[in-house]
Amino acid sequence: MRNSDSFHTIIIGAGSGGLTVAVGLANLGKHVAVIEALHVGGDCTNVGCVPSKTLIHQAEVRGAADTAGALAEVRRKRDALREKETLEFGAVPNLNLIFGQARLLSQSKVSVALLEGGERMLTAEHIVIATGVRPRRVPIPGLAEARMLTNETIFELAEPPLHLAILGGGVIGMEMAFAFRKLGSRVSAVTTASWVMDKFIPEVADALTPALYQREIATYVYARAESYDAANQTLFIQQDSKQIGLDGVDYVLVAIGRERNIEELGLEVARVQFTPREGIATDSYGRTNVPGISAIGDVTATSAFTHSANAQGRRVAQRSAFPWLPTRAPEPFYPSATFSDPEVATAGMSQQQIAGRYHPKLVKRIRIDLPTQTDRGYTDDVQQGFIMVDTVRLTGKLLSVTIVGPRASEMISLFTLAIQEGISLYTLYRVVYPYPMFSSGIQKVADIFLRETLTGLRRELGTVRATCRPSRRAAAVRSAGATSQPIPHSESHVAR
Amino acid sequence: MRNSDSFHTIIIGAGSGGLTVAVGLANLGKHVAVIEALHVGGDCTNVGCVPSKTLIHQAEVRGAADTAGALAEVRRKRDALREKETLEFGAVPNLNLIFGQARLLSQSKVSVALLEGGERMLTAEHIVIATGVRPRRVPIPGLAEARMLTNETIFELAEPPLHLAILGGGVIGMEMAFAFRKLGSRVSAVTTASWVMDKFIPEVADALTPALYQREIATYVYARAESYDAANQTLFIQQDSKQIGLDGVDYVLVAIGRERNIEELGLEVARVQFTPREGIATDSYGRTNVPGISAIGDVTATSAFTHSANAQGRRVAQRSAFPWLPTRAPEPFYPSATFSDPEVATAGMSQQQIAGRYHPKLVKRIRIDLPTQTDRGYTDDVQQGFIMVDTVRLTGKLLSVTIVGPRASEMISLFTLAIQEGISLYTLYRVVYPYPMFSSGIQKVADIFLRETLTGLRRELGTVRATCRPSRRAAAVRSAGATSQPIPHSESHVAR
Repeated sequence: MRNSDSFHTIIIGAGSGGLTVAVGLANLGKHVAVIEALHVGGDCTNVGCVPSKTLIHQAEVRGAADTAGALAEVRRKRDALREKETLEFGAVPNLNLIFGQARLLSQSKVSVALLEGGERMLTAEHIVIATGVRPRRVPIPGLAEARMLTNETIFELAEPPLHLAILGGGVIGMEMAFAFRKLGSRVSAVTTASWVMDKFIPEVADALTPALYQREIATYVYARAESYDAANQTLFIQQDSKQIGLDGVDYVLVAIGRERNIEELGLEVARVQFTPREGIATDSYGRTNVPGISAIGDVTATSAFTHSANAQGRRVAQRSAFPWLPTRAPEPFYPSATFSDPEVATAGMSQQQIAGRYHPKLVKRIRIDLPTQTDRGYTDDVQQGFIMVDTVRLTGKLLSVTIVGPRASEMISLFTLAIQEGISLYTLYRVVYPYPMFSSGIQKVADIFLRETLTGLRRELGTVRATCRPSRRAAAVRSAGATSQPIPHSESHVAR
Repeated sequence: MRNSDSFHTIIIGAGSGGLTVAVGLANLGKHVAVIEALHVGGDCTNVGCVPSKTLIHQAEVRGAADTAGALAEVRRKRDALREKETLEFGAVPNLNLIFGQARLLSQSKVSVALLEGGERMLTAEHIVIATGVRPRRVPIPGLAEARMLTNETIFELAEPPLHLAILGGGVIGMEMAFAFRKLGSRVSAVTTASWVMDKFIPEVADALTPALYQREIATYVYARAESYDAANQTLFIQQDSKQIGLDGVDYVLVAIGRERNIEELGLEVARVQFTPREGIATDSYGRTNVPGISAIGDVTATSAFTHSANAQGRRVAQRSAFPWLPTRAPEPFYPSATFSDPEVATAGMSQQQIAGRYHPKLVKRIRIDLPTQTDRGYTDDVQQGFIMVDTVRLTGKLLSVTIVGPRASEMISLFTLAIQEGISLYTLYRVVYPYPMFSSGIQKVADIFLRETLTGLRRELGTVRATCRPSRRAAAVRSAGATSQPIPHSESHVAR
């Protein structure tokens, strides 16, 4: 059977990014086709945020008491959401959901090998590639396929592993380490990096390491899996030059990164530029080098989250529906949130981005510790956590924020807003934060900045003078003088 | 023994507000005296935030397993902090901590009946009254003093009550109801109001009531305590016209409000204006009618929190130290946070303040429910909670925000910042919130506002035209047009 159809936009991939474009355009009356090779909802609903956050919640409330129930609940919630979304998106007017494998034939033509059999040819003015990623795998000699897990298979477990070895100390690795430990598994985390969460500043690992230790999650850095002895259920890892046997390992979770789904798409035929390492190259509005073809979400270089895929999808839909609107705005710095225990959240630039734009002496780092410098840390026995802010000297402009601690993922959005709107620490100083919350730590950060800036004005001016051009210096001085002189202030219920 | 001494500022009351002024001025080199009749740290450290939040945390982590340990830990933390603060503030250079009962003799003279005996006469250029409040009591015939608790005595309990009756459905009542229920007490809440948390919009009670019910906390509205039968341990309450006997009640917590500590201060002698109902009258910089005498914190009309006492203290210290700075800024709208389960947090104006400033048709209310309209509500089985925003039609200016739900107290500060800086829902729409957090509900609120405003622009314009002056209307229209047209967007990982 061969069918042909013409659309305003064809979207390849029904994950968070693709569906965002599809629904946005369909609601505006555009005729769209969404091609999905597996499940509606993409990683988020099926193998990502939804099952992982359900598991983390279940592990928190049920602990080791009802582990099979916890894992069954994860699947029940995931399946119910998947079914709901499949029905809902299938029923959106103007939106055609097509299950099959898509392949570009040109900049306006897509063939779909239908899951139900047969092929279908589609044409459109716009094509959006949103095929996402899959987990990167690594062979471990001796380890059977059934014993090797990824985020695509771990939520299928009927019971937690007895001893779960996790390869990779990143977001997925850390989230699963804490969750399965709470469910009663013995957990060992193995990373080739020099610390866990190595995509973040090392202070994150400094705060997570004691938390891992307290929960008896064994962590091996500079280490890699070598082989598995199935008879003795032992995973051998190499750390520096010594071999370590992790005994009783019944499952290995591989969480060492992702690979982009770009191979079977016909990108070469359509002449879309990409690299295996960076994915499909786009500008800040998702445009590839080929007119009419866009790419969003994890298949591109700049997204690694549901919320960034989502934000990119909005930009593409907006540009597609309203092509006369300006499209010069740079892509925002996406926040991140990791649901380890404690949580880790970030906003703003990476350290590399800061280094590329600011003289190191212009950047002032302020850190407060939640356990000792917030009263809520005291009442709630918080063991680890901090708020760390990189700011521009004198101006108090926010560059980068990292929060580790309870509720970090909820606290971060104030900083995302501040960074987006150019709100400085002088302004955050004037906000009244409800006592006794962790957010009073934000007050403390602003207090420290103001105190050190105003009491050390001559020194700060000297530092800035040594590094920047006259015009920027003048702006910095104006900015510092614009705020009425403050009273130094403390972390606690008393302002000191 | 009679001593006499002269200071830059005398502060009466070593609570959060008073100490904020004292430390602020002392650090600036001013010679200050702080007079305290009981404990350094005031309500916050001794009978308020610190013991209550410690109890709430202990109840959460220990539950009914180790109740004596939980209560002992509350006292241990409180005592340790009190001791630390007493030592620290006693050691601040330029700060003289004097224990005794203060009485104004004139606008610059204070006598102190020292706790150690004797009297001391102090003079100063400035006097700051920060004497706070005490719990209001109500006699209950038949109930012995030892069985009647307030926030000043409840943390002294060695074990949780078997059946705790709480009079008052406000912040203290609700926080203690959930905490003691988790510790295993039977809890009955009795309020004369028509709903619990009646200082807030009724939707708060609508969300808390099922939570109270699920936890089996009996709630009686329109009800008052009548008498106590000690022999049968029964508290009789009157609800409408019927009498109800609450059996097995061993303790009654009276949490029906506060009374300001103004009686023994010599306010009449110094001619400081006050009313028993509103406390000491001040302007937005804490100035009373008497030059040189200020008042801050709960003894005034506008503060009821540690963070508001703190903010007022900063303003007074700033004005006192830098008298040439302008003092025309109005007092901010203080946020609130209540640590019931779910939490309740508010920012912005009260409904009365909105009604006094805006035509009702100009105000647009947007509400999203956390359980059904955020994916985190779904994964985490959130049962109750919402974000409700009152905004100005067309402009999206934020007037008032109420959040009920997990982490509400941490989410609220983004809105406090937005309200302070005049940031509208158009701007909050552009923020990328980490998925899947409750703060994506903020995105949803902004989405709804934009969708309804832009798709119903004619209707919204008509509504505004009917209510406001041309100049304001023009500003509203300009503001609505200033944002590039958005794509309607949803609560979930898909923007729809």
